[in-house]
Amino acid sequence: MMASAGHSDRRRPSRRQLLLGGAAAGAGAAVTLGAERAGALPGSTPAPTADSAGLNGERTVPFHGPHQAGVTARPGAHATYLAFDLLPDTDRERLRAWLSLLTDDAARVTQGRGALADLEPELAVRPAGLTVTFGLGREAVLRAGAEPPDWLGPLPAFTIDRLEDRWSGGDAMVLLHGDDPTAISHLARMLARDSRSFATVRWRQDGFRRAYGSDPSGTTMRNLFGQVDGSSNLGPEDDAFGATVWAGTEAPGWLRGGTSLVLRRIAMNLEGWDEVGVEGREAAVGRRIADGAPLTGGTERDPLDLEAKGPGGFTVINPAAHAARARVEDPAQGIVRLGYSYDVPVEPGALDARGRPAVSNVGLLFGSWQRDVARQYVPMQRRLAEADLLNTWTTPIGSAVFAIPPGCEQGGFIGETLFA
Amino acid sequence: MMASAGHSDRRRPSRRQLLLGGAAAGAGAAVTLGAERAGALPGSTPAPTADSAGLNGERTVPFHGPHQAGVTARPGAHATYLAFDLLPDTDRERLRAWLSLLTDDAARVTQGRGALADLEPELAVRPAGLTVTFGLGREAVLRAGAEPPDWLGPLPAFTIDRLEDRWSGGDAMVLLHGDDPTAISHLARMLARDSRSFATVRWRQDGFRRAYGSDPSGTTMRNLFGQVDGSSNLGPEDDAFGATVWAGTEAPGWLRGGTSLVLRRIAMNLEGWDEVGVEGREAAVGRRIADGAPLTGGTERDPLDLEAKGPGGFTVINPAAHAARARVEDPAQGIVRLGYSYDVPVEPGALDARGRPAVSNVGLLFGSWQRDVARQYVPMQRRLAEADLLNTWTTPIGSAVFAIPPGCEQGGFIGETLFA
Repeated sequence: MMASAGHSDRRRPSRRQLLLGGAAAGAGAAVTLGAERAGALPGSTPAPTADSAGLNGERTVPFHGPHQAGVTARPGAHATYLAFDLLPDTDRERLRAWLSLLTDDAARVTQGRGALADLEPELAVRPAGLTVTFGLGREAVLRAGAEPPDWLGPLPAFTIDRLEDRWSGGDAMVLLHGDDPTAISHLARMLARDSRSFATVRWRQDGFRRAYGSDPSGTTMRNLFGQVDGSSNLGPEDDAFGATVWAGTEAPGWLRGGTSLVLRRIAMNLEGWDEVGVEGREAAVGRRIADGAPLTGGTERDPLDLEAKGPGGFTVINPAAHAARARVEDPAQGIVRLGYSYDVPVEPGALDARGRPAVSNVGLLFGSWQRDVARQYVPMQRRLAEADLLNTWTTPIGSAVFAIPPGCEQGGFIGETLFA
Repeated sequence: MMASAGHSDRRRPSRRQLLLGGAAAGAGAAVTLGAERAGALPGSTPAPTADSAGLNGERTVPFHGPHQAGVTARPGAHATYLAFDLLPDTDRERLRAWLSLLTDDAARVTQGRGALADLEPELAVRPAGLTVTFGLGREAVLRAGAEPPDWLGPLPAFTIDRLEDRWSGGDAMVLLHGDDPTAISHLARMLARDSRSFATVRWRQDGFRRAYGSDPSGTTMRNLFGQVDGSSNLGPEDDAFGATVWAGTEAPGWLRGGTSLVLRRIAMNLEGWDEVGVEGREAAVGRRIADGAPLTGGTERDPLDLEAKGPGGFTVINPAAHAARARVEDPAQGIVRLGYSYDVPVEPGALDARGRPAVSNVGLLFGSWQRDVARQYVPMQRRLAEADLLNTWTTPIGSAVFAIPPGCEQGGFIGETLFA
């Protein structure tokens, strides 16, 4: 691998130089910022200045380590998923070169330095928690001459699916998440540019959560239905996280310490949802809208009581409620969710379910980490497809599965275990 | 107008009730947030907690006042522009009803309360500086039976333009800007929903700047070329701001205290820009890339010296440099810029200027406020169209002009001066 420390040098090394490590470049430009100006206006609530808390823009998540950083980092406010199709001549050696090049871009830019041959290193100086996670589809693993796990490929068909090719599949994937949209835009472009000789972009999906500074830290996100979404999710600080997420001895050797990502694009019918009152919404989910607590009481993190009966003799939580259907007894048999809302302009002429001009095109980028897609994701998704009251207002329109290799140390690259 | 203070009530009043003020609703739901969780991970730079600085999410910009708040507020990290075409039967009275309804939505949601008949008021509780600015095209002013200013209509054609209908025109417009994408998404949907009986959405354009917390407050934004963009921009705290922006006695009476918005969608050819070194970039702009200072020295806010000569006898700043062509002697003859970057997925099969698969679809939503489009915006744009070195890499692909009525007080509505 090339040296990763470098001085500012805007000459553009050739790809050959880059791949062979012959370039002395690396644009870690020190950028002098302009003078500050007063921003508060008369009559406005004073803006809490980011300065007083330390700048979130300067926050970095280490790139190197045993696991890829994007799996364990706090999800940033913005996410961009880019999927690629490999070019026909991207063979084992070219695949290795591509993964090396993108790893180098990611290792630099997530730490606030420009990519090699980055002509806008100014856009990289404040990464705001930017992370990159690389994923591989079945085709990429086969081209590397390695053994794909059984589950690596399209999910089994579910009756609720209305999948569109433009949001599905892919030979490889990168997920960028962080708190700053400019930093993400810049790195996504660097990665797409440096992929040109190896792969074409198959699709891109962008999502958002509440901005940095909007909610107290640790608040569970709300999706665009207004639901608290992900209350029972495990975090890296939880004991069961590792057993749920990290591939172990059951996986091909190259994947150990890695995981898998399922990404589902789920369209949400907000016009229909608006016709349902709060009681109906809470019944569909099994949780209170106001605070995400189970309908059987307590607070957001308390377990559901699926046995508790109401005055009419029925269970308080409908057995077909989303939270009831998604639940697993053993957390390690579950998944770790990574949810982002999407909201993209309505296509011209699009109609809603009633034939009126559509007003919104919104949904959820439902990502999930699990060590084994077949044993963890698929059984849960089967239960949801069979019966989940929420299905009335949600439709999966995209689906993709990727193996997430383990992390790498300085001097290595993500995916190196495929070539060992 | 309806009372704007209200208790939480999820029953959905009819549109007739809304318009006649008969609804007691108003969903200012108190939302109990879930317990906090530790978010920091071992090895990460500690995340500065938003909590310690006060929550930016709770920041509100007052809606009522002599001017519309979005013109004077610090630009939020995210902007959504929605343009509308009026339905044929939206006559004077219906136009008034529509503007009343949208004003009520905006007055509530920007202050952290749900809109009337808002079924996701939970998404409104932390507006993060959300503002709404209403604009009117020529057709809307005519339907109100009022006098449009001469400049209200399409701009004169410029030779550099490659305008697309899907990003141009509109009978009316709302601009939402604020620091939180979820808050913007929610309000944009409320406004589009409440417009259904009056207008159709013509286009939507979304843009971003650096996130709240990324840069020290007062830092000038960088566009996706990496340029410091807007160094000489006036802010409301500057003496010349009012004379530049607020329409006075030369304008039709209904517009006094208002302004105008020109929105241009400017595609940026980043692949071409990447082939230009730093010197070429700085020559094209007339400013240093690193800090935005004029090439004739000083700091970002210092004036350009267009007379200073270099060793070769030529002026240091090329007379065709962007900053030189855009400059005005009298700030009050200039404009106040509101810039947002855009970055949207490349359309399938799109090619770049060299015929290769395109990797990016990026540009700038160039907004400008001025009291008179014909006297301020058009002469500047003519100078830029005639000669601006930046034109090599930029192409205007959308264009729209709106009159921005003055603000209103509690009980009034934006646009009420049209009906006086």
